Amino acid sequence: MEDAQNENDACNPSRHKKPFTESFEETPLLVVALTYLGYFILTVFGYLRDILQRWDIEKCHVPRERDEQKDFVPLYKDFDSFLFRNLYMRCRDIWNQPVCGVPGATLDLLERVSHDNNWTFQHTGKVIKGVINMGSYNYLGFAENTGPCAEAVIEATRKYGVGAGSTRSEMGNLDIHEDLERLVARFLGVESAMVFGMGFATNSMNIPALAGKGCLILSDQLSHASLVLGARLSGSTIRVFKHNNMQHLEELLRDAVVHGQPESREPWRKILIVVEGIYSMEGSIVRLPEVLALKKRYKAYVYLDEAHSIGALGPKGRGVVDYFGLDPGDVDVMMGTFTKSFNALGGYIGGKTELVDYLRSHSHSALYAAPMSPPVAQQIIASMTIIMGEDGTALGADRLRQLSENTAYFRAVLCSMGFIVHGNTDSPVVPLMLCMPAKMAAFGREMQARNIGTVVVGSPATPVTEGRARFCVSAAHTREMLDRALEAVSEVGDLLQLKFSRR
Amino acid sequence: MEDAQNENDACNPSRHKKPFTESFEETPLLVVALTYLGYFILTVFGYLRDILQRWDIEKCHVPRERDEQKDFVPLYKDFDSFLFRNLYMRCRDIWNQPVCGVPGATLDLLERVSHDNNWTFQHTGKVIKGVINMGSYNYLGFAENTGPCAEAVIEATRKYGVGAGSTRSEMGNLDIHEDLERLVARFLGVESAMVFGMGFATNSMNIPALAGKGCLILSDQLSHASLVLGARLSGSTIRVFKHNNMQHLEELLRDAVVHGQPESREPWRKILIVVEGIYSMEGSIVRLPEVLALKKRYKAYVYLDEAHSIGALGPKGRGVVDYFGLDPGDVDVMMGTFTKSFNALGGYIGGKTELVDYLRSHSHSALYAAPMSPPVAQQIIASMTIIMGEDGTALGADRLRQLSENTAYFRAVLCSMGFIVHGNTDSPVVPLMLCMPAKMAAFGREMQARNIGTVVVGSPATPVTEGRARFCVSAAHTREMLDRALEAVSEVGDLLQLKFSRR
Repeated sequence: MEDAQNENDACNPSRHKKPFTESFEETPLLVVALTYLGYFILTVFGYLRDILQRWDIEKCHVPRERDEQKDFVPLYKDFDSFLFRNLYMRCRDIWNQPVCGVPGATLDLLERVSHDNNWTFQHTGKVIKGVINMGSYNYLGFAENTGPCAEAVIEATRKYGVGAGSTRSEMGNLDIHEDLERLVARFLGVESAMVFGMGFATNSMNIPALAGKGCLILSDQLSHASLVLGARLSGSTIRVFKHNNMQHLEELLRDAVVHGQPESREPWRKILIVVEGIYSMEGSIVRLPEVLALKKRYKAYVYLDEAHSIGALGPKGRGVVDYFGLDPGDVDVMMGTFTKSFNALGGYIGGKTELVDYLRSHSHSALYAAPMSPPVAQQIIASMTIIMGEDGTALGADRLRQLSENTAYFRAVLCSMGFIVHGNTDSPVVPLMLCMPAKMAAFGREMQARNIGTVVVGSPATPVTEGRARFCVSAAHTREMLDRALEAVSEVGDLLQLKFSRR
Repeated sequence: MEDAQNENDACNPSRHKKPFTESFEETPLLVVALTYLGYFILTVFGYLRDILQRWDIEKCHVPRERDEQKDFVPLYKDFDSFLFRNLYMRCRDIWNQPVCGVPGATLDLLERVSHDNNWTFQHTGKVIKGVINMGSYNYLGFAENTGPCAEAVIEATRKYGVGAGSTRSEMGNLDIHEDLERLVARFLGVESAMVFGMGFATNSMNIPALAGKGCLILSDQLSHASLVLGARLSGSTIRVFKHNNMQHLEELLRDAVVHGQPESREPWRKILIVVEGIYSMEGSIVRLPEVLALKKRYKAYVYLDEAHSIGALGPKGRGVVDYFGLDPGDVDVMMGTFTKSFNALGGYIGGKTELVDYLRSHSHSALYAAPMSPPVAQQIIASMTIIMGEDGTALGADRLRQLSENTAYFRAVLCSMGFIVHGNTDSPVVPLMLCMPAKMAAFGREMQARNIGTVVVGSPATPVTEGRARFCVSAAHTREMLDRALEAVSEVGDLLQLKFSRR
C-alpha cells in the first residue's frame, strides 16, 4: 500500500498531518477471467437444474402460488429469479446468522442446520460461544450491556418508558429529543440539528424535501441505497460521478453550469453534490477538501452522509470534517446515523438553523413518522458525551486512539500477507477482495469454522468481479483478538489462494 | 349518531355481533361559508403584511439566505410559502409542545413562550404538571415506565445493549428479532411475519417490492402519507376510491378488469387494494368484509395497514380482522405498526411464508436498514404477551374491555353535547369538527389553558373546511379523567360555538 495510486496533495491541507493514502489495486487479469468462468459454470448448472426440475427429476423448493389463488397473477413474481435460486440459495447459510446477546467484540451464534439446501433452517439448540466479531459497525465499542451507557438507558426507560406515543408535532416531542438535538449540533459544530427514528429514512425522506424537478443531483457512483432512493424519489435529474474522482465531478459540474437543463437549456434550479464520509463497501474516505472547493467554485450544495465516519474518524471522532480539519459550516447538509459508532438507531441532519427549521415542517419523516424511542435517544446522549470527554473521563479519547491503532495494525498486516485490500489506510472498514463466487461462500464458511464472524458481500452490492469480505475494526478488539482473526484470514487465504496482490 | 348514514348489513356477518355504525355528518352550510370567509380574511391580511414587510414597516422573521451564499440559488425555497408564514406561524404554539416524562394518561409539559410571534420559543423553566393526555396513540395504556413491560425492557438492555450493530443479513440478526417475529405471526394468526425498525418505512419501502410498472394500486382517499409514498415509489398506476366507499371501489375494479391498462389495453399485471384498519384522521373503520368479497370476485390483492387498529380493535385486540371475525389468511398483506397500542417503535408485515421470505430478500428496509433495537423488540414482546393473556393475568383482557368502554362513553357524551363527531362508534380515534381556522387555534389554546392535551389538525391534512380536534381514547384514562376532559370540551365548545350538530 505504500505506493498508493491516489496520493494527492490537494487532499492534505496543512492542518491535516497524515497523508491521504488510498488504494484500489486492480484484480489480476487471471482472477477476473476465472471469476467470469465461475459465473459461467454457475449459470450452466443453473439452467441444467431448471430443466431437471421442470421434468420433476430434481425437487423444486421455489415457493409457488398455492392452489386457492392459482388463477391469480402471482403477487411476488421476482422471487423466482435465476440468480436468487442458483447463487444466493447455494450460500445462504453464511448470512442472517442468529446472534444471541450483545454483538460486541465477540458474540454468540445460534447454531443452525439446513436439510433442504438452505431453503429453510433449523436451530440445533447449540450456542457457538466467543466468536470474534469482525462484522458489526461497532467502531467505538459501544455495543455493551453494562457500563455508563447501559445504566443511563435503563434510567431513561424508568423515566419515559419506550415509546413516544405520537408524532413530534402532536404529543410526542419529548424534552430528551430536544436535549439530544442540542447535543448533536454541538458535537457537529453546526447551528442546529434534528434527529429521526431511522437512519435509512433520514436520507430517503429528506433529500426529496431539498431537491425536486429541475434540480441536478451529482452522486458518487458508490452512494448507499438510501441516498439513491432519496435522489430518485426527489424527481431530480441524477448524474453519477466515478467513485471519489474529482476530475469527473468537476467535468459534470462544468457541464451542468455551461449547458443547464437538457432540453430547455435553462440553468439548473439547484445542484446538490451527494457524498459519503466513508464508503461502506470500499472503505474509502471522501476527498472532502476538493469537494468543498468545487462546491464553492460552481455554487453547488453539498450533502454529506457520515453514517460510517461519524464517531469513527477524526482526532475528536467528529467525522470526516474533523479528520480533514475543515469548517463544518462549509458543508450545507451534514447527515449521519447513530446505528454505528453510537450503537443506537436513527439518524440526524445538521446545518444552519434555517435548513433544520425548514426540514422540521417539510420532511415526511419529521411530520408523519414516530419519533425516536427515549431509551435509544439516551444511548446516543450517553455515548456522545463520552466521545466528547464531557463525562469527565478519558474513555472517549482512549477508544478513539484504540480504534485508529487497531485500524492501522489490521490493515497493515493484511496487506503484508499479500491480500488485495481496498480503501483508505485510516478507514476502519476493511474490504478484502475474494472475487470468485465460490471463494466467497468458502471464505464465509471457513471463517465461521474458525469462530471468526465475517461479512461477505458480492454482486449486486459490488461489481461482478469484486466479491469481498468486509471486516469492521472496533476499538473493543484487543490485539489478541485481531491476531487470532488475522491468523484465521491468513490460513483461509492460503487454503483458497486469495493472496493475489502483486505489490 | 343513532341514525347513522352508512349502516349496512353486508358489514355485519353473523359472527360479528355489534352493528357497524359510522357517521360523517356534513358541516352546516353556514359554518362552511364562515370557514371560507375566515380563509379569505387570513389571505387578505397575509398579503397586507407581505406589503408592509416589503416596505420595512413590519419586521420580517422569514429566514433568508445569508450573505455568504446570497449569489447561490436558495436551498430551501418553499420555506417562504404564504400559508406557512400566515397561517401555520400564527398558531404554531399549539403544536410541538415539549413533553417531559411518560406521555401516558396524563403528562407534564414544559412551559414555553414566544416573543417574536411564534418564530422562536423559550422555555420558562416551569413544568405544567398533570395535563390529561387526549393526544397520544396510547390505546392500551402501555405508555408506562413501571410494571412488567418496563422491567422486561430493562432486562433486555442488560442482555443486549441498545443497538444491533449491523443489518440483519450481516451480524445484526438477533434471536430476540426471530422470537418477536414468531410471536407477531402467532398474534396475527398468519404463517409468518417480519418486523422493521420504522413503521413509516414499513409501508413506503415494502409496497415498491410488491407492485411495480403495469400494476394498479387502488387506494382509499384517506390513506396515510406512508402508503401514498410507497405507492408512488412503486411506479404503479394509482387510482383513488372515495373513503370507505365500496360502490366506488367496485366500479374501479370492474373498470380495471374490463379495460386493462390505459393505452396498451393489456390486463393489469396485478391489482392491489390498499386500505387501513382505522383511518387516523377520520376515526372510521374499513369495511373489510366487503373489501375481501370484492378482492375475491375481481382477483385482486389486499394490503391492510393496521397502524391504528392492531391492539385497539377486536375482542382479542387483534385488529380489524378480529373485530369482524374474519380469517386473517384472506388478507394478502397484513401490515401494522408497534408505535401505538404497544408503545414501541417499528412495523411488521405478516402473511404467507412465501410473501415474508420474498420481502426478506427484496425489501429495501430489510436489506439496507438497521434492525430494531433489542429493548424496543422486548417492549413489543412483553406488551403483546399481556394482550394475548399469555402472561397468566387478565391484565390484557381488562385493558381491552376498558378501552372499548371508554371509547363508547367518550363518543356518546360528545355526541349528546351537540358536537359533530366523525367516525365509527367503536373507534378510539375521535375527531371533533372545528372547521374554521381561527377556532382551531383557539380550541388548542383554550384546552391547553384547561390542562387538557389536545391535538388539532387542519388543512392540508384534512379538507379545507374540516379542521378538527382529534382525541385518542386510552384504556389508561379513568372515568374521572374523561369527565374532566369532556367538561373542558363542553365549556370551550360553548365559548367558541362549536356545537353545530343538527342531530
